[in-house]
Amino acid sequence: MNVKYKGGQHYRTIWLSDNKQIVQIIDQRREALPHIFRVVDLESVDAVATAIKDMYVRGAGLIGATAGYGMYIACLEAKGKTNPNEFIYESAIKLKKTRPTAVNLAWAVDRQLNEIKKASSIDDKIAIAMETAETIANEDAEYCRRLGEQGVKIIEEISRRKNGQPVNILTHCNAGWLAFVDYGSATAPIYAAYDRGIPVHIWVDVTGPWNQGSRLTAWELENHGVPHHIIADNTGGHLMQHGLVDMVITGADRVTRAGDAANKIGTYLKALAARDNMIPFYVALPSSTFDWNIRDGKQIPIEERDPEEVKYAHGVSAKSGEMDKVLIANKDSPATNYSFDVTPARLITGLITERGVCRAGEEDILKLFPEHK
Amino acid sequence: MNVKYKGGQHYRTIWLSDNKQIVQIIDQRREALPHIFRVVDLESVDAVATAIKDMYVRGAGLIGATAGYGMYIACLEAKGKTNPNEFIYESAIKLKKTRPTAVNLAWAVDRQLNEIKKASSIDDKIAIAMETAETIANEDAEYCRRLGEQGVKIIEEISRRKNGQPVNILTHCNAGWLAFVDYGSATAPIYAAYDRGIPVHIWVDVTGPWNQGSRLTAWELENHGVPHHIIADNTGGHLMQHGLVDMVITGADRVTRAGDAANKIGTYLKALAARDNMIPFYVALPSSTFDWNIRDGKQIPIEERDPEEVKYAHGVSAKSGEMDKVLIANKDSPATNYSFDVTPARLITGLITERGVCRAGEEDILKLFPEHK
Repeated sequence: MNVKYKGGQHYRTIWLSDNKQIVQIIDQRREALPHIFRVVDLESVDAVATAIKDMYVRGAGLIGATAGYGMYIACLEAKGKTNPNEFIYESAIKLKKTRPTAVNLAWAVDRQLNEIKKASSIDDKIAIAMETAETIANEDAEYCRRLGEQGVKIIEEISRRKNGQPVNILTHCNAGWLAFVDYGSATAPIYAAYDRGIPVHIWVDVTGPWNQGSRLTAWELENHGVPHHIIADNTGGHLMQHGLVDMVITGADRVTRAGDAANKIGTYLKALAARDNMIPFYVALPSSTFDWNIRDGKQIPIEERDPEEVKYAHGVSAKSGEMDKVLIANKDSPATNYSFDVTPARLITGLITERGVCRAGEEDILKLFPEHK
Repeated sequence: MNVKYKGGQHYRTIWLSDNKQIVQIIDQRREALPHIFRVVDLESVDAVATAIKDMYVRGAGLIGATAGYGMYIACLEAKGKTNPNEFIYESAIKLKKTRPTAVNLAWAVDRQLNEIKKASSIDDKIAIAMETAETIANEDAEYCRRLGEQGVKIIEEISRRKNGQPVNILTHCNAGWLAFVDYGSATAPIYAAYDRGIPVHIWVDVTGPWNQGSRLTAWELENHGVPHHIIADNTGGHLMQHGLVDMVITGADRVTRAGDAANKIGTYLKALAARDNMIPFYVALPSSTFDWNIRDGKQIPIEERDPEEVKYAHGVSAKSGEMDKVLIANKDSPATNYSFDVTPARLITGLITERGVCRAGEEDILKLFPEHK
């Protein structure tokens, strides 16, 4: 069992309150984790939409799970409305619009809509939406667990080749349990390896401007006891040139049926460096992250966020000990803030999924997922 | 003439005080520029060594020029000593040890030692060291000006092909006038283009962990009026994939006689992305940055700095308006902080030098610099 406790308690990233009326999440914004551990209550669709948009929750799987719970909250809220169905439909639209790149979002909302429409009374809709939300969350955790079991074989093999010397794994952003409901995607094989006693060491990209690596991945790994070092985003190529990286594992926000993978901006640069140094580059994803409708990664919409995110760094002030942000840029210069890039399939050694590891190409992907042929 | 004024005054990055007894520099640390413009007096070799080591001054050319002035200060200080020659020699050792990667440092110190030894009296040594320090600084400025004249031809050519649409140039770190005595290396062709009315737009990598791009390059460009946007270090590859970069120009801290280029960590990643997208990648350098003694970039020593630099971001506090630093990482996680990487010659389209532009290969480099055959 993964060690991810705070004050002795095991957490998932999202859950229902005891009375099942409120969705509870861990605040993952730059103002909070890892410096402040804070649970936030979401009691309305608007609150859920804000939580996704403002990145209280982030990461492909967790965005999907949150949208799933959001549709349950929508049904609860709809009960008091004159036209409940209209409210549910509008809530679905609202949730889908919060963030454009992660496909899990639309996938979870559509799955809920399909289930909800099977019930006629609002009480039945509420019941079915709650069950579906829990199922989506449980599946997310279970698929991540399983992909860990698949991916650990690759780490085990490298460990054998290195005669038990630590396997150095580079990861970008946070594709840990915080980005899903549990286990994580990129981290699932890592946790599985660590739990089996395979020596691993993780290079954690800071992942500017949001610093999900230095904040979230490092926090996860430290809590789990996995040896790691934080590195600037600029550093991975140098490490690879010097034999200090044995493999790269990242997550993904959307993977096309041909294997192109959208992930946190900068992933593509690490994939290029891995290729240049003949280092295996894996993308780990539960199948909910596949977009079966598109082949070419150029069709994936890439989110642009507030440029100010690039110009300010958030964290604990050395002077006051309080949360603060500092301007790290020339005040009057403009900035541009793309959140994702697309790593073409040709640079990906393999995709690690809950059904197994496959080459990043349509034929091989469909061998594992023949229902999408 | 470049516009780089503060309060109406034109500055170089380093100069002698009116009485010629003190070296004056602009404080470029994360605690200062661009938020605070502060001139610092250096009155001893120890102060000069600290200024280089703690990065009050940084950048290949400026490190060289500062070391040159440092040797003059060493001669001034030596005058009161029992054994002036020993003091001068020990000062040379001390200065050379401050930072390992930029070759201009040892080059400037050795040039001073060669000149100083020609004089026998300490007063003559002082006179010759001052003259040599000024010559090194003036040459640095002049070579940068000339390489700007060479490099602008490339920008002009792209501008013609784009029918006058802005030429989008990506640069990493600060290879601007702040990194030299004047003009800069990567920025010299940019300033020359801008001054000739060629429309350019610069993508400025933040360049973590020291943020020389968002702090220093952005400040320079804004003061000069050059259109630019700051981007996270992770962003360049995505921009290149989408046709938003026409060329890359970076500086260098040391270039081997075969054309391998050590520069700020992360340069290699941008060179890979440029190659993958068939975008020209240029390295601009005055000839003082060549290390004629080595061929293979793997022989270049790569500086490792304090890991804490990776975990803290410096800047102006949003709460207090004062300079502060914030912890941007999980508190108890360790970090690793390599300062440079080496871009192999095969990824470099061309070297822009004061004598012209050449391919990054020994034969072509030596055609421009036959005295090093």
